[in-house]
Amino acid sequence: MPIRLAENRYGKSQVRLVTVARGTDRHELKDVTVDIRLTGDFEAAHRDGDNSRVYPTDSMKNSVYILARRHGIDAIEEFARRLARHLLERESAPSGIDVRVAERLWNRIPIGGGPHPHAFVAGAGERRTARVEASAAAERVEAGLEDLVVLKTTGSGFAGFPRDETTTLAETSDRILATAIDATWRYTAPVASYSATWQAVRGLLLETFAEHDSLSVQHTLWAMGERVLESVAEIAEISLRLPNRHHLRADLAPFGLDNPNLVFVATSEPYGVIEATLTRS
Amino acid sequence: MPIRLAENRYGKSQVRLVTVARGTDRHELKDVTVDIRLTGDFEAAHRDGDNSRVYPTDSMKNSVYILARRHGIDAIEEFARRLARHLLERESAPSGIDVRVAERLWNRIPIGGGPHPHAFVAGAGERRTARVEASAAAERVEAGLEDLVVLKTTGSGFAGFPRDETTTLAETSDRILATAIDATWRYTAPVASYSATWQAVRGLLLETFAEHDSLSVQHTLWAMGERVLESVAEIAEISLRLPNRHHLRADLAPFGLDNPNLVFVATSEPYGVIEATLTRS
Amino acid sequence: MPIRLAENRYGKSQVRLVTVARGTDRHELKDVTVDIRLTGDFEAAHRDGDNSRVYPTDSMKNSVYILARRHGIDAIEEFARRLARHLLERESAPSGIDVRVAERLWNRIPIGGGPHPHAFVAGAGERRTARVEASAAAERVEAGLEDLVVLKTTGSGFAGFPRDETTTLAETSDRILATAIDATWRYTAPVASYSATWQAVRGLLLETFAEHDSLSVQHTLWAMGERVLESVAEIAEISLRLPNRHHLRADLAPFGLDNPNLVFVATSEPYGVIEATLTRS
Amino acid sequence: MPIRLAENRYGKSQVRLVTVARGTDRHELKDVTVDIRLTGDFEAAHRDGDNSRVYPTDSMKNSVYILARRHGIDAIEEFARRLARHLLERESAPSGIDVRVAERLWNRIPIGGGPHPHAFVAGAGERRTARVEASAAAERVEAGLEDLVVLKTTGSGFAGFPRDETTTLAETSDRILATAIDATWRYTAPVASYSATWQAVRGLLLETFAEHDSLSVQHTLWAMGERVLESVAEIAEISLRLPNRHHLRADLAPFGLDNPNLVFVATSEPYGVIEATLTRS
Repeated sequence: MPIRLAENRYGKSQVRLVTVARGTDRHELKDVTVDIRLTGDFEAAHRDGDNSRVYPTDSMKNSVYILARRHGIDAIEEFARRLARHLLERESAPSGIDVRVAERLWNRIPIGGGPHPHAFVAGAGERRTARVEASAAAERVEAGLEDLVVLKTTGSGFAGFPRDETTTLAETSDRILATAIDATWRYTAPVASYSATWQAVRGLLLETFAEHDSLSVQHTLWAMGERVLESVAEIAEISLRLPNRHHLRADLAPFGLDNPNLVFVATSEPYGVIEATLTRS
Repeated sequence: MPIRLAENRYGKSQVRLVTVARGTDRHELKDVTVDIRLTGDFEAAHRDGDNSRVYPTDSMKNSVYILARRHGIDAIEEFARRLARHLLERESAPSGIDVRVAERLWNRIPIGGGPHPHAFVAGAGERRTARVEASAAAERVEAGLEDLVVLKTTGSGFAGFPRDETTTLAETSDRILATAIDATWRYTAPVASYSATWQAVRGLLLETFAEHDSLSVQHTLWAMGERVLESVAEIAEISLRLPNRHHLRADLAPFGLDNPNLVFVATSEPYGVIEATLTRS
Repeated sequence: MPIRLAENRYGKSQVRLVTVARGTDRHELKDVTVDIRLTGDFEAAHRDGDNSRVYPTDSMKNSVYILARRHGIDAIEEFARRLARHLLERESAPSGIDVRVAERLWNRIPIGGGPHPHAFVAGAGERRTARVEASAAAERVEAGLEDLVVLKTTGSGFAGFPRDETTTLAETSDRILATAIDATWRYTAPVASYSATWQAVRGLLLETFAEHDSLSVQHTLWAMGERVLESVAEIAEISLRLPNRHHLRADLAPFGLDNPNLVFVATSEPYGVIEATLTRS
Repeated sequence: MPIRLAENRYGKSQVRLVTVARGTDRHELKDVTVDIRLTGDFEAAHRDGDNSRVYPTDSMKNSVYILARRHGIDAIEEFARRLARHLLERESAPSGIDVRVAERLWNRIPIGGGPHPHAFVAGAGERRTARVEASAAAERVEAGLEDLVVLKTTGSGFAGFPRDETTTLAETSDRILATAIDATWRYTAPVASYSATWQAVRGLLLETFAEHDSLSVQHTLWAMGERVLESVAEIAEISLRLPNRHHLRADLAPFGLDNPNLVFVATSEPYGVIEATLTRS
């Protein structure tokens, strides 16, 4: 029976490395995890077990460490770009490369009012991310962040939604809004500093979340994305994913107690999810 | 600045339910988790906080339980279809629905040589999955399985791959091949029994994994997909994702011991990943 | 200030290995994870950084692979005993050893009505466990299982409990009982076959869970433990931990539907936990 | 056969709540998870299914929310003490209570140079913990922290350890030391402010980790514990658990590259673990 390969990709996941730049006065630390995918004409590899063009995933892993040694790691967007070009240059010539890098963030331990030169404490659970998709002809650079957990205790409501025979939810003008922001944004042009821009975008997302008078998660998502697009000209579009981590007001009436938004049951499941991409018209 | 909504969807995740069909002689158990996404014209909701067409995710959750009570759950593909139609009929009229159902599998506890009528023990960690994407005009039904963990101790090699200055991997004609199969397949026509077909596909995947003389993970992936497409006419295409869970032969030379493929270091990271979709030509 | 070391132990965790016994007709597979702890007089190591008696955790790891190569792995209780003795014999002479082994269970893939000689599919998520605590003078052997997930759809109630102003729970004579059994039992005498005894205990736990008319989780726990102690003379005591994975009957009254124990909301948190050790008087 | 209950306890786990103290100018947020265990004479409950003294775990959960509403939550040590006393006063009269509280830490989102009054971003993954074990006659109060992840890029070595035929580890005078600190300390006397003391202990642990010239993990553990005991008179003893998250220097020799402690492979498993309790002589 005639069968063909419609789509395929392969690579190495969870390549973990830490690099140290050992300055005379202080050390710089980078803690990253790399995922690589290759695409190309691999029908013979699949159909016949012909490995003559299958660049091993083990060599991909080696390449990560080799490049980290040769060039160090500064902004992860630049490291991803370098790795993508390196892989495109292999003799086995893949047609496309997709590199993702996630960076764990560390802070210096404070000692006597100042930062320690070589001792670090992990930052919040969020990760800075970069993605580069590249071919011989084109390159697409994205940056982002994952799992930036935020919560506001007021300034959020949800009302005016359609009601039918499946509806039990009450309208509210004051609730807890809690989410774990996943965001990715695509650059149309190189920026002077990927790291400075990342910090700026992170700050805009946090500020907008805090200050926006939210009529829904969708409404806040738009405000966050709009703020970023208005502020950073090099960003063409931004995608946001906001799970709605429901905090239910505890029902204390059976115990003769009121609960004017003071005590909440934090829940893990089920949860709402709002996802959207905003782009310039 | 003119900004627009390029893509968006929202819904409820991790709606967990267990249903019991209480026959006179024995009970049937279904244990499922449902994820729902709606798409539609939600620009006003995002831009202006206009919730008049935002069917609440809480009502989606209610709908799951209502339909489970009204109709029970038999094959999860049918339950997903029913839920998708129910949601399309809401007055707020989404343009598209995406329903995913994952089923945890249970076996009856054996008692005195026979199965117990109402006591169960969890099956392997794998999950049976179904996905229905529907609009007023069309419906797409997929089935699948997640995390079907398999291992073969011989009958697998990897050799003949390109070598360059980044290569350290040795060729091998005999290694452990271990993976956790994720598979989804799309039906072009209704089948007599989704559950019987699911069982058949699962069996074909396992048998092919076991019997195939593997020259690479890609090679085995093709064999598995080909076998399914050859055997089940109603399946138009199948996607497989096979992580390569590396088992490294322990180096015991420092201790004066050989190791003819007897003792392996099982690793979690990094790991290879091979993904492909096979379709009929 | 005078400070002393009250308690201490150290070792290696999560040593993962797979062994293959390559028979002419078929292969036997063992997939285990080992945790080791040493105790001894390590005050100088802590206080002064004197490592002269600190047998490295890296050497513990090596020892696992060396013994697996020399002797293979059959029953994990025996492997744990051998490893404990090996570590006690080190020149650095720890005073106590605590070895834990967890085994992932695999089944042979069925092919043409029979089991495949060298291809396997993962069993349920439960793990078989063994623990050996040893010193020069004594040895204590425990076996157990972790995460044996079971559920019965009837034959379980909870009533007659004390009520006060903090109580809202309704009494019930028919509910779902779901748990993930953790059990460990201590042997006072060697058994003919640790593996056969383990299988027997597992069967007794499952049968009792299924058949017991449960008035509470505590009540079922007792029945399970009693059954094991009555059946296996070499077991001195058994400890059971039974989380109560609550399945709440879905309240469908707002939708004009009754729910005679047909549809349940499965919850992850919070959950009850019942733990007890039963011993012979 | 005569069987008896050797040990037993039961309770509720993972009771999650968020409280908001709504001041006129700003809101205070507490995000805690509570675990409760009761001990007592429950043999009749286990043996006979007599629930007349089994205070339901559901009522334990209710008690958490009731007390949070009545008194709010300030220091979690005080909340755990209050909850323990409340449970001891139940008519069913347990003989012992064990309450554990874990607090997720949040920071205020910075806006225009100052902290936002009601919007928060999650802090690092570490959790502040408290444990109160209480009976009618006595009370034991512990505080602690979990998963305080730290790393230093130099100032750590491991040498002078015993070598035998199982040893392959090289000595080193300069390595990465990375761990996730778990610490608990017991108070012998009430302190003026549990929160201020917790902050002080956390600071001492971080500073000592950073500045100590480490000859082994054990050596650093001692230094950290000693510093705390020397500094806080109300602390009787401190227990520390330090996993050794190995960072292996990448071997780049096959690629003609040296690696003077610049590029490391971060590993998850296996890992060393060092645990000890320090107490005043």
